[in-house]
Amino acid sequence: MRNFKLTLCYDGSRYRGWQKQGNTAQTVQGKLETLLSRLLEQEIEVHGSGRTDAGVHARRQTASFRADTELSCQALLTAVREHLPEDIGALFLEEAPPRFHARLSAREKTYVYRVWNSESPCVFERKYVYVFPRALDLEAMEHAAAALRGRHDFSAFTAGKKTGKAAVRTLRSISIERAGEEVRFTFTADGFLYRMVRILTGTLLEIGAGEREAESAEALLASGDRARAGFTAPARGLCLWDVSYEG
Amino acid sequence: MRNFKLTLCYDGSRYRGWQKQGNTAQTVQGKLETLLSRLLEQEIEVHGSGRTDAGVHARRQTASFRADTELSCQALLTAVREHLPEDIGALFLEEAPPRFHARLSAREKTYVYRVWNSESPCVFERKYVYVFPRALDLEAMEHAAAALRGRHDFSAFTAGKKTGKAAVRTLRSISIERAGEEVRFTFTADGFLYRMVRILTGTLLEIGAGEREAESAEALLASGDRARAGFTAPARGLCLWDVSYEG
Repeated sequence: MRNFKLTLCYDGSRYRGWQKQGNTAQTVQGKLETLLSRLLEQEIEVHGSGRTDAGVHARRQTASFRADTELSCQALLTAVREHLPEDIGALFLEEAPPRFHARLSAREKTYVYRVWNSESPCVFERKYVYVFPRALDLEAMEHAAAALRGRHDFSAFTAGKKTGKAAVRTLRSISIERAGEEVRFTFTADGFLYRMVRILTGTLLEIGAGEREAESAEALLASGDRARAGFTAPARGLCLWDVSYEG
Repeated sequence: MRNFKLTLCYDGSRYRGWQKQGNTAQTVQGKLETLLSRLLEQEIEVHGSGRTDAGVHARRQTASFRADTELSCQALLTAVREHLPEDIGALFLEEAPPRFHARLSAREKTYVYRVWNSESPCVFERKYVYVFPRALDLEAMEHAAAALRGRHDFSAFTAGKKTGKAAVRTLRSISIERAGEEVRFTFTADGFLYRMVRILTGTLLEIGAGEREAESAEALLASGDRARAGFTAPARGLCLWDVSYEG
């Protein structure tokens, strides 16, 4: 059995997220498993670096799978490209060390959340941004972001069930940049909890819009109380930007 | 009656082009006329700077219309934005001098044709590029472009019926630039014939791919024979980039 590492991108608009559910219809993992199993004439199980929610995009998602095949990576990549729908792209395929696993070997992930901060329409990128036209105070958001950086229990910023030790993550960086009418939030961490990026973004947007104090971020973290954090920013603005591995 | 200048953008994927046909369904002009007539409770006729074909996009299209209204431009713009579908955007609305006409007053237009020149997938911009993965010789295309620049009878590069004097246009510039996996053709002229940009692009691509000589461009122009020019590059890669007016 050979072990493969596949790097993908996808426009998540049409999908019910990464992870297959019951039947495999309309999930990215499901599409890939069905396609690879058919191409390689064996049952293929695909592991992603992590799930992305329904409607979330990926600029670089990493997947791994084992297969018994003599096809070259280039031949298999070409075959996969020929059969994928146009909203899923196979970027790179390489043979990986036997113990490589897309989720277990991941060291760090980066997510980008794109906000269209204007009354003016965003036509061409409309599926990849969240329109939030109210004035945003970048300095206040930066101030709050500084308190969120580092190793913390992020229970207040998840819709999942993990709490306490299980909810500790190291948020290595948050950057907030304006480029024209767009404000872009970039988060890098050793891992993210369920909905964490979207709740962090929603909370920062409420701070930027003056609805809550920048200073509230620290107390929020300490509270561990999801109900006190901000809204969950919509899936469409979120994109899994990159996954990094040792070496 | 006041005269208005409206600047628009649109993703042309879903439309049968700019110009209304019979019934107004699924044309950009038709959508606008229906919307403005309803909002202003009078029959509004909208003039575009020119037609765009089915599937062609516009980053900046200019339209003009006359209306009897006391609404401010800002109020009317807001109302228009609220009702336009998400693939048509109203960028600016201003009151124009009485004789301003989007087509008759236009001085110069710029079109951009985007080619995705790679085997690698283009997922996020897939509706706005034409995938042409074969190797392209930029120098050969530049050489041919130099012969096409200037004032010529472009009969060989149109699918329309104009010939001779009626087909004379001044092609002020053609630039061809590579940025990563994309090759971008930018054409500026005092006007364009029907399908001219797409046939120019198709011909340049054939030259870039080594299927025809760069030197053939001059003879092609002289021939006035459409059958000797290259293929019509698909609509999806084409975008009306800008229209300029005196002043």
